[in-house]
Amino acid sequence: MALICSNIEENVFYLTLDNPNRRNALSIEMLEGISNALDEANQNKDARVIVISANGPAFSSGHDLKELTAARNSDDRGQAFFTKTMQLCSSVMQKIINHRLPVIANIRGIASAAGCQLVASCDLAVASNDSKFITPGVNIGLFCSTPMVALSRNVSNKHALEMLLTGEPCSAQKAEEIGLINKAVASEEVDNTVKWYTDRIIAKSTMTIKIGKQAYYNQSQMPLSEAYDYCSTVMVENMLKQDAEEGIGAFLEKRHPEWQDK
Amino acid sequence: MALICSNIEENVFYLTLDNPNRRNALSIEMLEGISNALDEANQNKDARVIVISANGPAFSSGHDLKELTAARNSDDRGQAFFTKTMQLCSSVMQKIINHRLPVIANIRGIASAAGCQLVASCDLAVASNDSKFITPGVNIGLFCSTPMVALSRNVSNKHALEMLLTGEPCSAQKAEEIGLINKAVASEEVDNTVKWYTDRIIAKSTMTIKIGKQAYYNQSQMPLSEAYDYCSTVMVENMLKQDAEEGIGAFLEKRHPEWQDK
Amino acid sequence: MALICSNIEENVFYLTLDNPNRRNALSIEMLEGISNALDEANQNKDARVIVISANGPAFSSGHDLKELTAARNSDDRGQAFFTKTMQLCSSVMQKIINHRLPVIANIRGIASAAGCQLVASCDLAVASNDSKFITPGVNIGLFCSTPMVALSRNVSNKHALEMLLTGEPCSAQKAEEIGLINKAVASEEVDNTVKWYTDRIIAKSTMTIKIGKQAYYNQSQMPLSEAYDYCSTVMVENMLKQDAEEGIGAFLEKRHPEWQDK
Repeated sequence: MALICSNIEENVFYLTLDNPNRRNALSIEMLEGISNALDEANQNKDARVIVISANGPAFSSGHDLKELTAARNSDDRGQAFFTKTMQLCSSVMQKIINHRLPVIANIRGIASAAGCQLVASCDLAVASNDSKFITPGVNIGLFCSTPMVALSRNVSNKHALEMLLTGEPCSAQKAEEIGLINKAVASEEVDNTVKWYTDRIIAKSTMTIKIGKQAYYNQSQMPLSEAYDYCSTVMVENMLKQDAEEGIGAFLEKRHPEWQDK
Repeated sequence: MALICSNIEENVFYLTLDNPNRRNALSIEMLEGISNALDEANQNKDARVIVISANGPAFSSGHDLKELTAARNSDDRGQAFFTKTMQLCSSVMQKIINHRLPVIANIRGIASAAGCQLVASCDLAVASNDSKFITPGVNIGLFCSTPMVALSRNVSNKHALEMLLTGEPCSAQKAEEIGLINKAVASEEVDNTVKWYTDRIIAKSTMTIKIGKQAYYNQSQMPLSEAYDYCSTVMVENMLKQDAEEGIGAFLEKRHPEWQDK
Repeated sequence: MALICSNIEENVFYLTLDNPNRRNALSIEMLEGISNALDEANQNKDARVIVISANGPAFSSGHDLKELTAARNSDDRGQAFFTKTMQLCSSVMQKIINHRLPVIANIRGIASAAGCQLVASCDLAVASNDSKFITPGVNIGLFCSTPMVALSRNVSNKHALEMLLTGEPCSAQKAEEIGLINKAVASEEVDNTVKWYTDRIIAKSTMTIKIGKQAYYNQSQMPLSEAYDYCSTVMVENMLKQDAEEGIGAFLEKRHPEWQDK
């Protein structure tokens, strides 16, 4: 049984977590499914933006505790399996960051632990007003240490630590205020709001988006002057591309650009 | 005369600045008192969370200007004493960050200069609506340079520079909006709100909290991929602890966990 | 024709972008004008704060696309000219950060691309309610890669990426909420609000402001313990200056300080 559905429609690659009975837990199989779908989107020349959503009432409950617990019966008390899970999960999250395409989370319901990490790892996120964000590992003796890598790169220390130390849910409204998501909207408006983003993104040159997204995360880890040197070089290279010449020309001539590299 | 009161009650270690006549100035004696109390809390096996509050109308006025001025009469014009003060203060602030227990600031009144730094250095902070946060060093020719280390790691550049360059107070409401504190509430609700946090924190495994808090600040200074490698290792080690096995087991069996390491 | 006006009035150095017909585009000539004016302010002993504003309905439209396009006719397809533009622009932005004086942006109208970068690079920013902030490079095939260096150091990832990936404008109100500017006010209140800031800044010791601003940006790029060591040293040096002795003395004696180094 595949735990992921994916399909492409009008240049949008939809990746849907589809294990509602297990609240879309990020089991090894689910993580591999996401990883493969991200690779598929990377290969697909029609794909220009990725939307991650989920079937069922929960966006994702995080790691699969039953699977982790079952692994405790092995000789190493699960160490190898836990390590594999953490590495795979970290690799999937970084695959989103490093993906050539923007990735948007479409959230209805709870995003918990590694599920919250998934939201934090996406470039953009839209949630229904009744969604919740929670890092409850502390309630089960297992601090949300990998989720906090993504969380703490999105929100300020006090907001991150409130979620991590108390294990209490953060409302969609609060998540918008603190920068964890872009917008909290009525449940029936989530798809339309995501479409507002995807409509704009698919209208751009995919080459330009790829250059920009990659440079964004790279420069964010550099000291200021190094970041400027790096981004100046990136921008000159971008300027010499056909799509920049076309885009600037179209702008000056007040016509729509025709992207070569869609 | 001790400048600090401390007591423990139901697993909460209360550390109270108790020099209201000097507006709880962070003199050498006060800083040593805080440092010793933090050590005491570290040794106390019943302590599971620390609350820092203050007696009198001011939370803390920052460094003791009379003490600093008196030191100018020495042969080195106070340099050795100033250096000792700065190092001790920086050490106390980092002792909070590095403490095994979460530290919550309970603020009523003004938190000024190093007093504002103390708030920024705590993991969580709750303030009364009439509290003020201010870095007024610029008004007396002495820029709040060490306070800004903590401040700038909590709020964005423009917000930090507004406080630092103008020396004007920031209201509790604004402090909540910009991420300097978690919550601004009515004066009579501060203790209850702090209790909301402490109740939740003392219900967790102290071992888990210790692992998580330490990892939080460590990973926050790492590049993304290094942070993921580090936190993956932390999380596997955490998973192999008794309290994680108990916590996950209790969750799956729908019962309350019995922590070994409280 | 000079593209910049500058004048000094009551210790405030006003730097005004003055090419409204070209929407204050940041051409080579404009960038050199800004750079020279910043140098001039640095030399001027009466200058204690810099205000950057603009004539005409736009604050700044960013790089001069006509100038960049004209350069494509050269043998290297413009590479040398693009590189010169990027380096000059990056140098101007860093000159603001490294300037001894605080720099305040006074914005009425649109701040686009490198114009938005200019706002993000200032220490403080006040905008009229109808101002807009936009990084629209993605619409013309040229990602706003150097603007994002400044933008991403002011706002959180999701907010920065929303602007960068969609190319849609951010309202002044939203810019205030996300930390890109300090205040959005009615158009007729912008000058008064800027004056609120300049009044306060010119009342301080310029030596103190210089020490503090420089230390702020330096420490913000350091790990925590290094930042504390560095700022402790800065603060001891500051304490030994005449203006700190005067300022602390005046405070303790409840009189106005007389700064030596205005």
